[in-house]
Amino acid sequence: FESKLPNIGTTIFTVMSQLASEQQAINLGQGFPDFNPDPRLLDLVSAAMAEGHNQYPPMPGIVALREEIAAKAHKLYGANYDPLAEVTVTSGATEALMATIQAFVKTGDEVVVIEPFYDLYLPAIELAGGIPVVVPMQAPDASHPTYRVDWQRVRDAIGPATRMLMLNFPHNPTGIIMTETDLDALESIVRDTGIMLLSDEAYEHIVFDGNIHQSIARRASLAANAVVISSFGKTYHTTGWKIGYCCAPQALTAEIRKVHQFMVFTVPSPMQHALAHYMQDPKPYLGLSDFYQAKRDRLHAGLAATRFQPLPSQGTFFLLARYDAISDLPEAEFARWLTLEHGVAVIPVSAFYRRPDAPESNHGLARFCFAKQDATLDEAIARLARA
Amino acid sequence: FESKLPNIGTTIFTVMSQLASEQQAINLGQGFPDFNPDPRLLDLVSAAMAEGHNQYPPMPGIVALREEIAAKAHKLYGANYDPLAEVTVTSGATEALMATIQAFVKTGDEVVVIEPFYDLYLPAIELAGGIPVVVPMQAPDASHPTYRVDWQRVRDAIGPATRMLMLNFPHNPTGIIMTETDLDALESIVRDTGIMLLSDEAYEHIVFDGNIHQSIARRASLAANAVVISSFGKTYHTTGWKIGYCCAPQALTAEIRKVHQFMVFTVPSPMQHALAHYMQDPKPYLGLSDFYQAKRDRLHAGLAATRFQPLPSQGTFFLLARYDAISDLPEAEFARWLTLEHGVAVIPVSAFYRRPDAPESNHGLARFCFAKQDATLDEAIARLARA
Ligand SMILES: CSCCC(=O)C(=O)O
Ligand SMILES: CSCCC(=O)C(=O)O
Repeated sequence: FESKLPNIGTTIFTVMSQLASEQQAINLGQGFPDFNPDPRLLDLVSAAMAEGHNQYPPMPGIVALREEIAAKAHKLYGANYDPLAEVTVTSGATEALMATIQAFVKTGDEVVVIEPFYDLYLPAIELAGGIPVVVPMQAPDASHPTYRVDWQRVRDAIGPATRMLMLNFPHNPTGIIMTETDLDALESIVRDTGIMLLSDEAYEHIVFDGNIHQSIARRASLAANAVVISSFGKTYHTTGWKIGYCCAPQALTAEIRKVHQFMVFTVPSPMQHALAHYMQDPKPYLGLSDFYQAKRDRLHAGLAATRFQPLPSQGTFFLLARYDAISDLPEAEFARWLTLEHGVAVIPVSAFYRRPDAPESNHGLARFCFAKQDATLDEAIARLARA
Repeated sequence: FESKLPNIGTTIFTVMSQLASEQQAINLGQGFPDFNPDPRLLDLVSAAMAEGHNQYPPMPGIVALREEIAAKAHKLYGANYDPLAEVTVTSGATEALMATIQAFVKTGDEVVVIEPFYDLYLPAIELAGGIPVVVPMQAPDASHPTYRVDWQRVRDAIGPATRMLMLNFPHNPTGIIMTETDLDALESIVRDTGIMLLSDEAYEHIVFDGNIHQSIARRASLAANAVVISSFGKTYHTTGWKIGYCCAPQALTAEIRKVHQFMVFTVPSPMQHALAHYMQDPKPYLGLSDFYQAKRDRLHAGLAATRFQPLPSQGTFFLLARYDAISDLPEAEFARWLTLEHGVAVIPVSAFYRRPDAPESNHGLARFCFAKQDATLDEAIARLARA
């Protein structure tokens, strides 16, 4: 038979984690914490199981959890989502993305994605029969130390066949965030176009240096045609629980749920009950930026003392670093070499490009995850200093 | 915008469960137990969380669980699945079905489904651009008390565009099972055709009256081109955990994982670790048929003493009953009426038909779930006796 996804291999995150584990390397690749969630949250799961929450919860998620999600979006972003009709609990941000794309992208529809982009975006669009239209960011250079979105290029990419624009800020892998000026640009681009926004805000609670997260949900004119996605895994150190959610106006949510109900039906009941309780206290998510900023600073300073040159990171739990003082290997090969020779696994930034092997996708950059215990970061830095 | 699934509403299971809960009716509709899983299994989840299994497990599932699944398939069915390359842990049987269909069905491919069928089959095929070819079972009549598959009709439905044949035995909703003669017929139908079998065996451990489950995995010639799906939810009374799996030859598994990794990536780590331990003891799944046979007998006998006429059920935790001595309403209306007037929710069998409202899809049958405590069944029977 002919594969429907002939050019798709195993996701880079799995490839690098497997290599890290074979090599017993420190894994700063795939984005997950190497520490446990709050024990109180674990106790809440155990309590929910003991109370009998082990059978099908409602298909869109339990009401109490949807209410907490809507209340948080209201408090933080002034958004007014109806928990019953506009919030859906999903199998991580991943399923929310896939279900949304399946629900709305038809054969021949164009979907604008900003490169570099998370590795599921393109296969998801292609599976739905859509056509990805890739808008490259400006890569960092001597005059500007971070990646930048050129909104004029986004505007130019939009045409009559454009169905959707995918966004992801705080941005994985570059760590850049949206400003109010970016939201203004976006508003002027999509006004009167009918283009849907698919906004992957998995890192909404990890924004540094006193900045605030500019959620698409803040602007009613954008939110009216947007699906806003987030992830409990990144917020509560529970990446292995696979619980996320999406908020969208009722008419959009109705279509997403048509797919969600047949893609997974619902997500684990014990975790949903635990999260509904746990969310009542805002401190864990309000304190997350400070928690990770200290780790960013630790890794950034540590790398700056090696031959790696770390780039600024304004959000997410990732930062990029140049390695051209160490090697001129293409990024995928460098990531492999670093894992094998120095026992530290990273992700090649080129994996977030449409053509990972092309020269224009290789800027001599590696992505480091700093969602790690300080001791892990210190040991990684010590190893990297030898490179 | 135009919906991609204009004819799809909310799944019947959610509709009836919501009605049941609004009416505080006894819910014999959606298929889930009203009792808790083995406390030992819950303790294993708590232990896994405490041990730190809260971050991304491997994308295809943890190795220990895949090994247990492969070992069980070998012991029960003589199947030889490689746990690393041929077993994938999924978000319930649901995600396994959806991922398989997305992985293999292309625009214009025909997929043969036997009617009545589980409600996700058609939308899943349609989302992938496939064309469902519906083969009706023979409905029960005076001379034959159960639904039957006419394999000749299946054979006749197969043509050059046929990509896949979907099977589901023990069968939801009819409770019929496969015999060796059925497997023979199937072998002769698919031999040399290259048609893939998608076998939904969610109820593999619930087969009554001394019969054994005729898994597709028993016949190497069938298994060579088959995806065999099952569900821990139905086996271990954990429908709300959403963990299932599929077994398929390496080349097929590789394609399924390409989709799975972008649909959900993986499923909750604590439950996977708990299930890997729990599966080491075969008693819970080996004892399941007897456990449910007693409940089937209880409900069957109870209904036989009312104006309902129960049909035989050979497997699953469902049985069908005729209600024509009570009402001549179409099935969906009858199910609603029974919930509202007599406080017992059931599922209209017509919901498992392509055209639920058509006269030919309405045989005066309701589906009852007997995965309930004896007291629940007794109270339901008492209420139904008044109808
Ligand atoms: C689903 S595995 C990938 C985790 C992640 O978000 C990342 O590493 O970028
Ligand atoms: C996913 S809800 C449906 C449960 C079920 O398998 C059934 O009731 O048939």
